[in-house]
Amino acid sequence: MKRLDTSAGDFEADFAALLDDARETTARVDAAVAAIIADVRARGDAALVELTTRFDRWTPRDAGALHVTEAEIAAGTAAVAPDLMEALDLAASRIEAFHAAQMPKDIALHDAAGLKLGLRWGALDAVGLYVPGGKASYPSSVLMNAIPARVAGVGRVAICVPTPDGELNPLVLAAAQRAGVSEIWRVGGAQAIAALAWGTESIAPVDRVAGPGNAYVAEAKRQVFGRVGIDSIAGPSEVVVIADAANDPAHVAMDLLAQAEHDESAQSILITNDAGFADAVAAAVTAALPTLPRAPIAGESWRRHGAVILVRDMAEAAALANLLSPEHLQIMTADPQALFARIRHAGAAFLGRFCPEAVGDYVAGPNHVLPTGRTARFASGLSVFDFLKRTTWVEADRAALGKVGPAAVALARAEGLTAHAESVALRLR
Amino acid sequence: MKRLDTSAGDFEADFAALLDDARETTARVDAAVAAIIADVRARGDAALVELTTRFDRWTPRDAGALHVTEAEIAAGTAAVAPDLMEALDLAASRIEAFHAAQMPKDIALHDAAGLKLGLRWGALDAVGLYVPGGKASYPSSVLMNAIPARVAGVGRVAICVPTPDGELNPLVLAAAQRAGVSEIWRVGGAQAIAALAWGTESIAPVDRVAGPGNAYVAEAKRQVFGRVGIDSIAGPSEVVVIADAANDPAHVAMDLLAQAEHDESAQSILITNDAGFADAVAAAVTAALPTLPRAPIAGESWRRHGAVILVRDMAEAAALANLLSPEHLQIMTADPQALFARIRHAGAAFLGRFCPEAVGDYVAGPNHVLPTGRTARFASGLSVFDFLKRTTWVEADRAALGKVGPAAVALARAEGLTAHAESVALRLR
Repeated sequence: MKRLDTSAGDFEADFAALLDDARETTARVDAAVAAIIADVRARGDAALVELTTRFDRWTPRDAGALHVTEAEIAAGTAAVAPDLMEALDLAASRIEAFHAAQMPKDIALHDAAGLKLGLRWGALDAVGLYVPGGKASYPSSVLMNAIPARVAGVGRVAICVPTPDGELNPLVLAAAQRAGVSEIWRVGGAQAIAALAWGTESIAPVDRVAGPGNAYVAEAKRQVFGRVGIDSIAGPSEVVVIADAANDPAHVAMDLLAQAEHDESAQSILITNDAGFADAVAAAVTAALPTLPRAPIAGESWRRHGAVILVRDMAEAAALANLLSPEHLQIMTADPQALFARIRHAGAAFLGRFCPEAVGDYVAGPNHVLPTGRTARFASGLSVFDFLKRTTWVEADRAALGKVGPAAVALARAEGLTAHAESVALRLR
Repeated sequence: MKRLDTSAGDFEADFAALLDDARETTARVDAAVAAIIADVRARGDAALVELTTRFDRWTPRDAGALHVTEAEIAAGTAAVAPDLMEALDLAASRIEAFHAAQMPKDIALHDAAGLKLGLRWGALDAVGLYVPGGKASYPSSVLMNAIPARVAGVGRVAICVPTPDGELNPLVLAAAQRAGVSEIWRVGGAQAIAALAWGTESIAPVDRVAGPGNAYVAEAKRQVFGRVGIDSIAGPSEVVVIADAANDPAHVAMDLLAQAEHDESAQSILITNDAGFADAVAAAVTAALPTLPRAPIAGESWRRHGAVILVRDMAEAAALANLLSPEHLQIMTADPQALFARIRHAGAAFLGRFCPEAVGDYVAGPNHVLPTGRTARFASGLSVFDFLKRTTWVEADRAALGKVGPAAVALARAEGLTAHAESVALRLR
């Protein structure tokens, strides 16, 4: 864990190093991924069966075995304990409500020149959601990816999830069913992204691919971009906690560790205006760490990427948070909304002393798929907007064209586009 | 030009071929672009000067010469004829008004569980706009890219434009000034995208890069994606015109040619329910073609990619248009809004017999930067949304956490994320 102090002489250099901490050795998997995509495009299902056998430690008897059946989904759902099912349902309902509130309205204008013009939102026809397999197979992510698509009005929502050793996570199936997913495929890695983008004999192509994944999945999304839409490419997760001395250090410590337990590349940063509180939190982290089953991961993350930054005042804290543009930002002060008003860049904010980020990971309602690695400067969390597109329209009659047409003719001629100019001029003759 | 008829036996195969017509031999420029980006990252301004000398047929005396001065912008603007300036101003005002109407509202909810939650829109700090140089240097594109950014509230809008032989287009400068652009750089190609994404000694990095460009520019945007946001990667332009026999064939022919004159890869498709009208339009295209200065380009486009599709009725026309998901769609029927209601996928629609697409290219108000090559299935035209991002937020007190926290604890435990669970549970003890 690094300690920084804005009053210290070496602060600028230390903070620059923190900003530059990429936290990922992006393995060069371009060529491997390109080969997998080419294989799936060329051989379809046969490639999926072979690649699944090679990477996922089980052998589908044929392409049909890649499809998760209704019966399997029902059985998986039935296997989930009732209290967990209730928790899943509360989460789903709240995510639905928050995303429904996001739905934008169409625009229709009739202007002084007599033109009618507007903008119409429409849902994508079909989307593919990637769900990581194994230990990182999170049912909450199924809800967070699938519900916005369904709320947006997407007709077909297909999930691809690798099933290492052939095993399916029942809670993932339950979440998929609750979220209204249309179909589930036991396919993972770059081959899943290729199948969703290009289609195979079994899997119909989709229009957009979303969801987190490893380096292969991320690179595959990058390579199919253009053929289909993709969401942002997620890096390791991070949190910035701005907290004053009135907080319980144990709470803040656990918030930092919650982030750190995701993986070794995760990053937890505390910004505080109180040196004693900084020490107390650091001590609380050290005390709590051994109690965690995921202590090796969380410890490694905290040691390698954790930081405690001492600031002179909270205005400075907001400025640093903006430079860090974190995925998650907790503001634990007396008036968190006042500080939040100074924040320009953050994926999601959690306000108050009783609002740990974990609430947002599961049940608050806003999405937990968020821009990482300083991309909150330009990117946003997943939302209904990821599953909608816009068509603009203009309607003109001869009188309206007479008002604006001559300007179009002048500009088209200036650009040397004669047919453009003539298409307007002809109609006004 | 291809002729298709939905009543003909070979229609399915012919239409499939039309859909698959990629219209671009995407040159493999990955390695060349990667080298240019690496060079700009390593050597900054020095690389820009050298690459400009190599590619743009002029030699900047130093990096300072890459910056277009206030005096140059003023001189360029003064060189524009008053009527053209008026046309530019009408276009800019209308584009501003339409994009201002798009500005979304923040969300703030206070729910039954006692949580406050919301979504706040914010503008990007800085964006870079690429403007192609030479013959494809379109002032209208400057307006279409820069105005939405300014309307969204972006503080810094930087333009990069190559100036082959050192020449600047005065109308581009005038458009940039009218649109409120902050700075203009005489830099083009992949090196411009690299400079905008990574910054050099002279050019500060931006958060998002937008604007059309050649294969090098497109590949460079693909490679910097993640470091900065990018807009969709534009392919060759296309139009689908749905028209009945009540139209003037000469109007429709000129609309098809307006699209075709962009470049040889452009595509113009007429869909009509009247065989005689189809013939009349085809004849009118042949007649009008020789009158155009850009006849070689338009003729090549029409011969290679043009198509006339005869349909049984207009419902069929709408269905085919959806499959084509065109960038531009003209609907020239008695009740164009009724047919438009059946359209699911199109970048922009132009409704009525007096609404040629060229109106939308310049003065209507909606953006002319639109999704090409069937990407309207999932992508949208440029808008204020490209220059905004969202931060979601949640605020909870102890009572509210008590309502939703236990579900978060249950789900976190099920996912094996103990510290997540504990960060909530601790606060409820």
